[in-house]
Amino acid sequence: MDKRSCAELIQQRLALEPAGRTLRTTLYLSIRQLVLDGALPSGAPLPPTRVLADALGVGRSTLVRVYAQLRSEGYLHSRGGSATLVSETPPVSLPTADRIDHATPSAALSQRGQDITRHAASSRIQGGAFVPGVPDVSLFPFPTWRRLLAKNVRYEQRHLARYSQGGYGPLKVALAEYLRVSRMMVCAPQQILILNGSHQAIDLCARMLCDPGDRVWMEDPGYWGARNVLRASGLSLAPVPVDAEGINPPDRTDAAPRLIFVSPSSQYPTGVVMSLARRRRLLSLAEIHDAWIIEDDYDNEITQNPHPLGALFGQSPGRRVLYLGTFSKVMFPGLRLAYLVVPEQLAEPFSVGNAELYREGRMIEQAALAEFLDGGHLSAHLKRMRSVYQERREVLHTSIESRLGDLVSTTDGLAGLQLPYFFRDQTDDVALAREALEAGIVFRPLSMYYDNLQHYRAGMVLGFAAVPTEDIDIAAARLCTLVERAFSHP
Amino acid sequence: MDKRSCAELIQQRLALEPAGRTLRTTLYLSIRQLVLDGALPSGAPLPPTRVLADALGVGRSTLVRVYAQLRSEGYLHSRGGSATLVSETPPVSLPTADRIDHATPSAALSQRGQDITRHAASSRIQGGAFVPGVPDVSLFPFPTWRRLLAKNVRYEQRHLARYSQGGYGPLKVALAEYLRVSRMMVCAPQQILILNGSHQAIDLCARMLCDPGDRVWMEDPGYWGARNVLRASGLSLAPVPVDAEGINPPDRTDAAPRLIFVSPSSQYPTGVVMSLARRRRLLSLAEIHDAWIIEDDYDNEITQNPHPLGALFGQSPGRRVLYLGTFSKVMFPGLRLAYLVVPEQLAEPFSVGNAELYREGRMIEQAALAEFLDGGHLSAHLKRMRSVYQERREVLHTSIESRLGDLVSTTDGLAGLQLPYFFRDQTDDVALAREALEAGIVFRPLSMYYDNLQHYRAGMVLGFAAVPTEDIDIAAARLCTLVERAFSHP
Repeated sequence: MDKRSCAELIQQRLALEPAGRTLRTTLYLSIRQLVLDGALPSGAPLPPTRVLADALGVGRSTLVRVYAQLRSEGYLHSRGGSATLVSETPPVSLPTADRIDHATPSAALSQRGQDITRHAASSRIQGGAFVPGVPDVSLFPFPTWRRLLAKNVRYEQRHLARYSQGGYGPLKVALAEYLRVSRMMVCAPQQILILNGSHQAIDLCARMLCDPGDRVWMEDPGYWGARNVLRASGLSLAPVPVDAEGINPPDRTDAAPRLIFVSPSSQYPTGVVMSLARRRRLLSLAEIHDAWIIEDDYDNEITQNPHPLGALFGQSPGRRVLYLGTFSKVMFPGLRLAYLVVPEQLAEPFSVGNAELYREGRMIEQAALAEFLDGGHLSAHLKRMRSVYQERREVLHTSIESRLGDLVSTTDGLAGLQLPYFFRDQTDDVALAREALEAGIVFRPLSMYYDNLQHYRAGMVLGFAAVPTEDIDIAAARLCTLVERAFSHP
Repeated sequence: MDKRSCAELIQQRLALEPAGRTLRTTLYLSIRQLVLDGALPSGAPLPPTRVLADALGVGRSTLVRVYAQLRSEGYLHSRGGSATLVSETPPVSLPTADRIDHATPSAALSQRGQDITRHAASSRIQGGAFVPGVPDVSLFPFPTWRRLLAKNVRYEQRHLARYSQGGYGPLKVALAEYLRVSRMMVCAPQQILILNGSHQAIDLCARMLCDPGDRVWMEDPGYWGARNVLRASGLSLAPVPVDAEGINPPDRTDAAPRLIFVSPSSQYPTGVVMSLARRRRLLSLAEIHDAWIIEDDYDNEITQNPHPLGALFGQSPGRRVLYLGTFSKVMFPGLRLAYLVVPEQLAEPFSVGNAELYREGRMIEQAALAEFLDGGHLSAHLKRMRSVYQERREVLHTSIESRLGDLVSTTDGLAGLQLPYFFRDQTDDVALAREALEAGIVFRPLSMYYDNLQHYRAGMVLGFAAVPTEDIDIAAARLCTLVERAFSHP
């Protein structure tokens, strides 16, 4: 597609937009929709703002702002000094329209296949204010990573190009040291598995430790992704409420859990830190029920908590905890590298299971990552990001509090990437999220994080980490207007 | 307890801690353990950091951090401005003797976890003569790959560092074109999923299309890795014999398959090409049984077959075939990139299922791969490798035939990476493989590829692709000596 036909396309699309919006919004929505529809395909060059401004008869400064917004949201990107290209952006489905039964070719799919699609909750939108759970990749030290990767893509390093079994040794040594220092965890490198992301780690635990029908206690609200992975392995999910001390499991139960999935350092999405008393109760219940615990520590390095607690892994005398860490939040999500630290007696069978189920490789990336850790690059990056995220969190928090006051409340948690807000009443957060999306603001409704829909709370989870500090207040203002309106016209 | 005896207690405890940890960790663990053991009882005052630092001969700042950590974790608390006291902590129920035994590995694993480890078949050895299924990575154009990767690890390309959903568009466009030209397949880019290796692709098919207990027809002998992945999803494996025309399924069966796993272009490990008649019968049986077919085309680019058949995918009028391709053999195994082409009606649910189960990313590698394809680098590499592999195959074949004569036989297949040999009798191929390993020669016993051990054939599968041409004859000579000996002294 050339720039001329691109301008024509935009002009045609503009004509379809309803009146009553500002020119800037109309332009923004039109171009975005063309990208989302695939009408402007990935890689297509957009006309320079000057040319398009002339063609459309609009002011150039408006277009400059629209391009900037679309760039910051990831729909467009720049190449060289001037060219603006369409980014790879798959079609949007509302992040919230997922509890609806899909009228897909259901007969073709298995029961569990249908379950997986019915409960689908991952969002196709991964940029813009306020997508939760996403770090700011624009501040990542790409030159360093490029150098370390390139260093390991060489004939001399060709052994790294093979299948592997058990992961890259020096990375596991570096990780054991990193965990010892940062998490007070004592573990041998042999207890560490390197995996393609947290979902694979959870999947491996589900299959190695649980049989179909086994019960798993899940934090409610909690991480929807884990729920779906565990359900796909036939596990029966038992939502357990979360309060200000973290998960609050029942002392007695008729159906003992086989697995317990928790995020003690920074509960997702509430950010609550599990208290010591609660940790002990949980560990003791795990003993009583003969259950395993997965500790999802996705956020520990970036949480703003001034006194981070040690990992649950190190607090379990019965060694019933499997510790799950990820590089998605501290480096970049597309890396797809996570790690699982298992109790000694599980090290061998998990290593075998991992090789059988997924086959291993990616030693080039693992070697680069080991050097990234050993060279202190991760620490340096984290130090920087923590202060950036802290500032963004404060700007967003102030912006929301000052505008919404007691319409919303939050927790004492200090999660590193997002802020949870509970609505004062049960205003329809899914409808609100849909409305916000039309206004160019993305958030996840809090109700979506609940499995037990008898006891959910409406609200919104706002990711601030990937939003440039200077854009936060404007976007928050737009969002708050919508929230206020929803409250006044329920 | 007074502060002095408290300091002594800590000193004694410190002496028990193993060496090799940082001072801070040792101090933290010691004090924490004393609290947990009740040796430092609730309410006991700890010495001021200054006093304890002097008593222990350590830096005060270290102790300040340890106290802060223990306070934040609830083991200690402050009273007034300065005093630090041991907190009231609920007793931990330690595992009692009768619980110890269910922490032993076998009971710790689920039934399916035990199955996975019991059937484990992946090898830790990935080099040397004659490891099967492994390409020669030493001839891979690392400088080109390094350049393409580095080009996409940049601030300007930061959108590639995010989570993705649906894979990298231009790669799917390039693949669709590649498949059209090389495999006579017509498919839209939307029908292609990019996955972390074949195992993940098989796993996705198993879960999206099959429920536990569903029957799957497997080639016998066949790929052990697929068997293990399918079994881990609860499928019931039905081995179907392979003859000179490929899989030979029964016309009638009481238990209809839901899934059929085949490698028609180059059966693994026999190299047999499925005849057209057999293809038609298989497709028609799939219709009759309402079954899906996975076509594993791992070898098509490198098979030495002079007249490659088109893919089964394109031959199925009922669109019941899911096509599985991989870059492990044509580029390098550690890349962990494979792709699945699904019928149109499965494109959307598979894309959703893939995002849910595994979360996607790795767009940097996918972008580099797209350029590797578009730039003709893959074709050039393949052209070179085909002639290298052809030579190695011929050297190995001549070497084995000339030495073993009619003790062994092979098929007409021309698999690109390995040669299968059937023994004339049922000589114990597992024992022979063990013996060969001691002599520095690796091969996989043919019996290992069989699921139905009532009808297996003994033999050996020899990978020649990763063995330098000049080393083949020497290694083969050593191997043949062992084989001859096994035949003469069974």
